[in-house]
Amino acid sequence: MNGLIEHTLRGSWTSSGASAAPLSPRSLRWLRQRTGLAEMTTPAVPASLLEVAGSALPEAARAELAALIGEQQVLTEPASRLGRAGGLSYSDLMRRRGGTEFAVPDAVLLPTDPELVQGILEICVRHDIAVVPFGGGTSVVGGVDALRGDKVAVVALDLAQLDRLVSLDPGSRIAVLQAGMRAAEAESLLAAHGFTLGHFPQSFERATIGGFAATRSAGQAAAGYGRFEDMVESVRLATPVGEWRLGVAPASAAGPDLRQLAVGSEGTLGVITEVAVRVRPAPVRSRYEALVVDGWQSGVDAVRALAQGRVLADVTRLSDVDETEVQLELSGALKAGALKTYLRGKGIRQPCLLVLGWDAASRAELKLRRSATLNALRGIRSVRLGRPVGEAWRSHRFSGPRQRDALLDRGVCVETLETATHWTGLSELRSAVRTALVRSLKVGGKSPIVMCHISHAYETGASLYFTVLAPRNADPIGQWQRAKEAASDAIAGRGTITHHHAVGADHLPWLGAEIGDIGGKVLAAAKKAVDPTGILNPGKLIRPAR
Amino acid sequence: MNGLIEHTLRGSWTSSGASAAPLSPRSLRWLRQRTGLAEMTTPAVPASLLEVAGSALPEAARAELAALIGEQQVLTEPASRLGRAGGLSYSDLMRRRGGTEFAVPDAVLLPTDPELVQGILEICVRHDIAVVPFGGGTSVVGGVDALRGDKVAVVALDLAQLDRLVSLDPGSRIAVLQAGMRAAEAESLLAAHGFTLGHFPQSFERATIGGFAATRSAGQAAAGYGRFEDMVESVRLATPVGEWRLGVAPASAAGPDLRQLAVGSEGTLGVITEVAVRVRPAPVRSRYEALVVDGWQSGVDAVRALAQGRVLADVTRLSDVDETEVQLELSGALKAGALKTYLRGKGIRQPCLLVLGWDAASRAELKLRRSATLNALRGIRSVRLGRPVGEAWRSHRFSGPRQRDALLDRGVCVETLETATHWTGLSELRSAVRTALVRSLKVGGKSPIVMCHISHAYETGASLYFTVLAPRNADPIGQWQRAKEAASDAIAGRGTITHHHAVGADHLPWLGAEIGDIGGKVLAAAKKAVDPTGILNPGKLIRPAR
Repeated sequence: MNGLIEHTLRGSWTSSGASAAPLSPRSLRWLRQRTGLAEMTTPAVPASLLEVAGSALPEAARAELAALIGEQQVLTEPASRLGRAGGLSYSDLMRRRGGTEFAVPDAVLLPTDPELVQGILEICVRHDIAVVPFGGGTSVVGGVDALRGDKVAVVALDLAQLDRLVSLDPGSRIAVLQAGMRAAEAESLLAAHGFTLGHFPQSFERATIGGFAATRSAGQAAAGYGRFEDMVESVRLATPVGEWRLGVAPASAAGPDLRQLAVGSEGTLGVITEVAVRVRPAPVRSRYEALVVDGWQSGVDAVRALAQGRVLADVTRLSDVDETEVQLELSGALKAGALKTYLRGKGIRQPCLLVLGWDAASRAELKLRRSATLNALRGIRSVRLGRPVGEAWRSHRFSGPRQRDALLDRGVCVETLETATHWTGLSELRSAVRTALVRSLKVGGKSPIVMCHISHAYETGASLYFTVLAPRNADPIGQWQRAKEAASDAIAGRGTITHHHAVGADHLPWLGAEIGDIGGKVLAAAKKAVDPTGILNPGKLIRPAR
Repeated sequence: MNGLIEHTLRGSWTSSGASAAPLSPRSLRWLRQRTGLAEMTTPAVPASLLEVAGSALPEAARAELAALIGEQQVLTEPASRLGRAGGLSYSDLMRRRGGTEFAVPDAVLLPTDPELVQGILEICVRHDIAVVPFGGGTSVVGGVDALRGDKVAVVALDLAQLDRLVSLDPGSRIAVLQAGMRAAEAESLLAAHGFTLGHFPQSFERATIGGFAATRSAGQAAAGYGRFEDMVESVRLATPVGEWRLGVAPASAAGPDLRQLAVGSEGTLGVITEVAVRVRPAPVRSRYEALVVDGWQSGVDAVRALAQGRVLADVTRLSDVDETEVQLELSGALKAGALKTYLRGKGIRQPCLLVLGWDAASRAELKLRRSATLNALRGIRSVRLGRPVGEAWRSHRFSGPRQRDALLDRGVCVETLETATHWTGLSELRSAVRTALVRSLKVGGKSPIVMCHISHAYETGASLYFTVLAPRNADPIGQWQRAKEAASDAIAGRGTITHHHAVGADHLPWLGAEIGDIGGKVLAAAKKAVDPTGILNPGKLIRPAR
């Protein structure tokens, strides 16, 4: 228990839950030169120094909740509550570093089974208490912010103790997992039976099964294993009007697919307590390698050829020139200058890194699939960097959050955002977002570093993932908010406001451009049907019906 | 225009819109022996002999509609109205053969563009007129029955003249098609640009793009091309509260996937007017062949191995012993007795036909994919029947409706139903449905013929498609309704009530078992939001909010 709290607390205090990886002096020098960075060290403020208002949870409600789930499962001391105050967006992290005020839940509830979640909702309806479902706490869009709405108090419903493998059907290849199970734990439990889920988002080390389902997560190997919503066979939700189970077959024409309404509902239509997921035999062979292609458009053409030829590697990831440069500079693994010279000799003037990774059930399958992928790239000028660079990417693929902490420590504004659109509009979308970010983050003639990669490709289009590095100014949260607004305005009408980060509170202003007023009304009506008093995750995803 | 009306009329009068294929004397003899069939010839009653009540469409509404879309686009004479009275279920067809009363729309509206559909809905809201969107009229679940609900009149909104290819984006491989375009026409228009949609349900010759989207259709080559909902990039709907467009990117985490709420909404949440679909280059090579495996379970193991090995042929179709026997007997293509003897010599005592078909972009791809499929079958005893049987299946794959007409002409009760579930429960589901159908259709010691095949396989499960042949009794509609009820009761709790036929009016009683009371409430709430007065397709899919 204490271990758990400590872990969650520590975990959410920095991005990674581990010590920040130090930046090499060389990397720092390069960053200073490139961005005009003036260091502003801002370590995270120890929780003990923060003032946290007393819990507003009415004693009657607390007592009922404690009677239901146990005294020890209802936490009201400041440290526990701070540990569930928000997620991992740049703003969340800067608030903690700056000690700025932010919303803290009035209590943390730790139910141990789905029935108790149902019971909690009933009590919270009766006492008019807002409920924020909390999994790994890795939201970067304000999805777990402790917003109270018009309720008398707000609790974080931490699903960490719903962490069981409920059942495994090897014949149908379906595992039923409780919502609070972390991805890493799920992989290790499934591996014991020879299976894998194959879902590896950057948040892998902390994020949970329920969180993946609630946010339509997409893992780095989604080209091979599918997005999380493609893996969901069925879901079990607790709602204020009762338990709701959806999904009885791999496919159905029994009306609209309500699973796809529950998936992506971000805790606003119910608390996901169990998810039945499709699993696959754990791969016995895998191979990661890297190529360099010449220029962004050439890379896009390559990825499109793979997607439309249906020979994508399970991981297919194309970085633009800026991201390629930064990856090479900051990784320290390669001599960036020497590599550039080498590539120039091969006719590559605008190096763009293309990482490819395959998981396979046999050496033969690996060989076959790898040939199919590489054959499809024949018409595109590329230089193979081989396995070391590919494997280096693989071994660091969850370390982004740690790198980020190191950058924050040094006064860098570092944040990401993502979108997706159809192939024909992809380059225009990239330019529009780049321009918006560069303009809004330019300081004294120095431009920020705006990097972009394609992380997910489909037959009809692809995602774009942007990472920004800029010198922080005196109002870091406002600085980023303006940049984010500019980028989001550029996205609206050109692509989706989010490909896999979800809506939360941060993307809500742009959702209307995507689903229309009618879409907003439909969501509000669905919410009213399952959550008549609006206790579930207020302020996220759905605006209340007027 | 007249051609169109005639076609629709003729088309809906029999299943196929063409003369019934005669049954050979040999087939008839076999049927008589097998089922105890006593012939009851019941040809379709000519429309001119049917009494049709006068149109209840108020003159004020008719005039407004005519002013909007043109006098000639509002049809009120009996023949046109009869042509849109119901779909192609056994009950629909028997009603026409028996001249029994059935619901006829008060008018047929033929708008020529999406804006006019929007205008029609506004007029119908104002005059409180129910609207039944009508595409190919191939519903077998009462989805286009002209139910009036509590409205003053009911119109069939026939989308036949929304039949344009709006745009084609070859780079993103997306075609925007109007909803009334028939699949066959879409294929021929796309073929001119080198593309295919790849959607080939048995209703291919008549069904429309909008109908596919509205009902979550699944084509015979869905293993290769995906179900229709997988192909939908975006949809445009007319609703009583305004136009609604959904879908801006190939994938998104912007909340629940509302496209998947529109897809499958069966005309109850809006009238789909345009669909952007993913297309693929038209295959240049294809190959269809057949194998025989020994017994149902062995066949299921084979199909499961293909699905889980992700080496399914684009068409993968396993018939059980009864269906295999009937196919061989009724096709007349093979000497059934001689084949059985041959198979017995090869150790196949319970022949189950497995049809496999591949579409490929090149000879090399075809070879590669075919080897992968056949390799995965190595461990399963099978006898290859080669291409003739496979190609025979292919060339007759849309002729089921014609065969059916011939059977109906001879007094046979012939109907189909379908479901899907996970692999582990598949055989139990098949037995339960079989038992229910045999019991309820047994007459005087003679059992009906109940055939079953797997038409669609997934990693986690498969669909089951049942075809019933039974001697008709004196109350044919009641006879089938009791059998359908028994089968549906057997399905509830074991699988989905429909894998690709949709809910319509006929499956509505069993929908609750699948999506829960809460699911029903959510659908009703969504409907209330977009169709506050409930004019859209009353009595189908959604029960009004109480």
